[in-house]
Amino acid sequence: MFKKILIANRGEIALRVLRAARELGIEAVVAHSEADAQSLAVLLADEAICIGPPASKDSYLNIPNLLSAAIITGADAIHPGYGFLAENPQFAEMCRDYGIVFIGPTPESMHSLGSKAGGREIARASNVPTVPGTGVLQSAEEAIAAAEQIGYPVLLKASAGGGGRGQRVVRSAEEMASAFTQAQLEAQNYFGDPALILEKFIELFRHVEVQVMGDGKGHVVHVGERDCSIQRRNQKLIEEAPSRLPEELRQEILAAGVRLAKHVQYAGAGTLEFIVDPEGHYYFMEMNTRIQVEHCVSEMISGLDLVKLQILIAAGEPFTLQQEEIELKGHAIECRINAEDYQKDFRPSIGKVETLHFPGGPGVRVDSHLYTGYSIPPNYDSLVAKLIVHAPSREEAIARMRRALGETAIEGPGLKTTVPFHLEVMDNSFYRRGAIYTNFVNTRMAEKV
Amino acid sequence: MFKKILIANRGEIALRVLRAARELGIEAVVAHSEADAQSLAVLLADEAICIGPPASKDSYLNIPNLLSAAIITGADAIHPGYGFLAENPQFAEMCRDYGIVFIGPTPESMHSLGSKAGGREIARASNVPTVPGTGVLQSAEEAIAAAEQIGYPVLLKASAGGGGRGQRVVRSAEEMASAFTQAQLEAQNYFGDPALILEKFIELFRHVEVQVMGDGKGHVVHVGERDCSIQRRNQKLIEEAPSRLPEELRQEILAAGVRLAKHVQYAGAGTLEFIVDPEGHYYFMEMNTRIQVEHCVSEMISGLDLVKLQILIAAGEPFTLQQEEIELKGHAIECRINAEDYQKDFRPSIGKVETLHFPGGPGVRVDSHLYTGYSIPPNYDSLVAKLIVHAPSREEAIARMRRALGETAIEGPGLKTTVPFHLEVMDNSFYRRGAIYTNFVNTRMAEKV
Repeated sequence: MFKKILIANRGEIALRVLRAARELGIEAVVAHSEADAQSLAVLLADEAICIGPPASKDSYLNIPNLLSAAIITGADAIHPGYGFLAENPQFAEMCRDYGIVFIGPTPESMHSLGSKAGGREIARASNVPTVPGTGVLQSAEEAIAAAEQIGYPVLLKASAGGGGRGQRVVRSAEEMASAFTQAQLEAQNYFGDPALILEKFIELFRHVEVQVMGDGKGHVVHVGERDCSIQRRNQKLIEEAPSRLPEELRQEILAAGVRLAKHVQYAGAGTLEFIVDPEGHYYFMEMNTRIQVEHCVSEMISGLDLVKLQILIAAGEPFTLQQEEIELKGHAIECRINAEDYQKDFRPSIGKVETLHFPGGPGVRVDSHLYTGYSIPPNYDSLVAKLIVHAPSREEAIARMRRALGETAIEGPGLKTTVPFHLEVMDNSFYRRGAIYTNFVNTRMAEKV
Repeated sequence: MFKKILIANRGEIALRVLRAARELGIEAVVAHSEADAQSLAVLLADEAICIGPPASKDSYLNIPNLLSAAIITGADAIHPGYGFLAENPQFAEMCRDYGIVFIGPTPESMHSLGSKAGGREIARASNVPTVPGTGVLQSAEEAIAAAEQIGYPVLLKASAGGGGRGQRVVRSAEEMASAFTQAQLEAQNYFGDPALILEKFIELFRHVEVQVMGDGKGHVVHVGERDCSIQRRNQKLIEEAPSRLPEELRQEILAAGVRLAKHVQYAGAGTLEFIVDPEGHYYFMEMNTRIQVEHCVSEMISGLDLVKLQILIAAGEPFTLQQEEIELKGHAIECRINAEDYQKDFRPSIGKVETLHFPGGPGVRVDSHLYTGYSIPPNYDSLVAKLIVHAPSREEAIARMRRALGETAIEGPGLKTTVPFHLEVMDNSFYRRGAIYTNFVNTRMAEKV
């Protein structure tokens, strides 16, 4: 087993990994930027080390600094959390070169699954449906030719991308040339790689994803699926498990996820994202080769600790958990509470936390790095807490979430959170019926039925 | 369904009932003493009403004030929580007289089960073993005669008692006369009834209790059992579920609990307390006809909400849950965090809460009425938080509890809590092995192995 893990992340996920390490009896050192010296993970850690100035590129994305930090502190493993370097195969490779275990899949799977084009190819090879589309395109002309075959509207996407960045809907050949140039620029800016692919644009769909855990030698189980359709600008806001798909379709998608992960002999925790249209067609989008923000809902319904499992698998402990041993029970919902002003188009609204009160009681879980007196640094994303509930049924889970949101207080000068947004969703009749597609926030929230 | 529930209690249990009511969509009015006007349940309630001065006898035990409060606020039901009037059949009867539903069993079952002598009789009638003992004794002479038949040491107990108050070990006939007089006085003081019974004194035992839920018409299910052997002066400090009894014995005790509860056609949530000696003999002690402090561990392993079920049953909703539908999963532990100075013989050590931080993350539940800025009133018991964890195994639950206790901060001038005590228990090798009897705190904590 590892002696010491370096946590190469911040915020709630640094705390999440710290908790898992502590429960396993492994020391944890938290690598932090100058802006995060007073973060909760740092305060609770066995050890902490500064890895650079506030800007992510100088700290959480600074590979030499992170590797040095691991070497200096004698860490034998690195947990990358999510975001930052979590899906960077070069980082994983360098960890390997330095004899430090990267807690995640191999650099090879990260590399092959990391690009949209690569993921698509693996999906085809493992007989998993993908949205009709292309490989990497060389020019706008090639894009027009492909779009004519597939049929408009189409979606231009950064091959290296994720989170909806660098995406562009194109509805006719006339729009293609300028869209292509802009998408290339964005892809270059966001991901350092201008390569684009093109896909059929599906307007109305649910985002359903399959959580898998693999041992790296071909043994893969799923831990159910999640519906993450409540999004805004491709950023997930609310997730739940299980999805409300018809059971046969659900099982088909779960099986497709496991098949693909087995095909690449996947190691550790991974998520296969699918689009499911109203007719029940499903298409593989991409695989996220890391733990995800929303992993907690899967933990709630399964009773498993996915981060502990990640660590155990990376440490070479035999992963023998069988599919039939995983029992999914009840319904879980996660609200991502962001420090944003919902009334002002969700603009970031951070500050010092002067009053803090989180909910408790049955079926409530809080994952948050906030504490009273903490000043939220302006340098990073606005996620400040994840509120997760679990109950026997979806209806009871919604009632529980309303109750828990009502007990939540996160206050300070200039500080606003998305708690009111979440309360509104819980009261929305479309949401309550489960009539949810990814356009929910734009269409159904306005109607407020 | 009820329109409005009056919560006739305080502290964490008032909050617990409020949460259940809210999730069921029922309005809740919190009845509070003058000392509790700023309590969290009051702050979160739909409505609050003052029922008298700080002293319990003038407020939480003041039946006319509570009934008036219910009538004034238009409550159609009263939830008594635990302690105070929760097991007072007169109160339940007066509620009935005023057309207000008492959320609990009938006054008749409370009456017959409420005295030790009555409970013993019902146990015999339902073929459940009890500790060899007597009915109500008229004199010390009668006690000596009974003790000679049973064999010393024996235990004198208040027939109306509970929580270990008014109990006295007698090791020889010489000690009996003065012990009898003192125990009578204590019984009169604590319970308003000097009646005493006598039992064989079992020195070394586990406290194991069965959680049942009944519909009042003979349908009764159990929600597993709890081991509550970590006690000090008969006050429970740590509880866990399931117990670590051999499976056959466990099933026998569960069946005995259900049998007894069926015999009285029990309605709502109840707990049957058993003594289990090292040889595996078990004896019924008494039934608590209310929700208990430690109900949360049963909720964690079952996924059920016992307080919601209490309310639903009292409202006359059909209670059709079958035993085979109740699946108990994993292991749960509850630490009762008291505002006491563990280093100074657990003496109360209250104050204003200036720094408050509760743990989060997977498998952690917090039930607490504390908030930052809250001044703990000196008038009531010292329970300030219940920390409950759930994990697949007992070993993992202990690791999780250690982790969670380590994240807990409850600080203020003069304020001490029993968090250090609990950390010490979690590290104690006897506790970790599960070698626990009710003498644990006195014997095993001193050894600190």
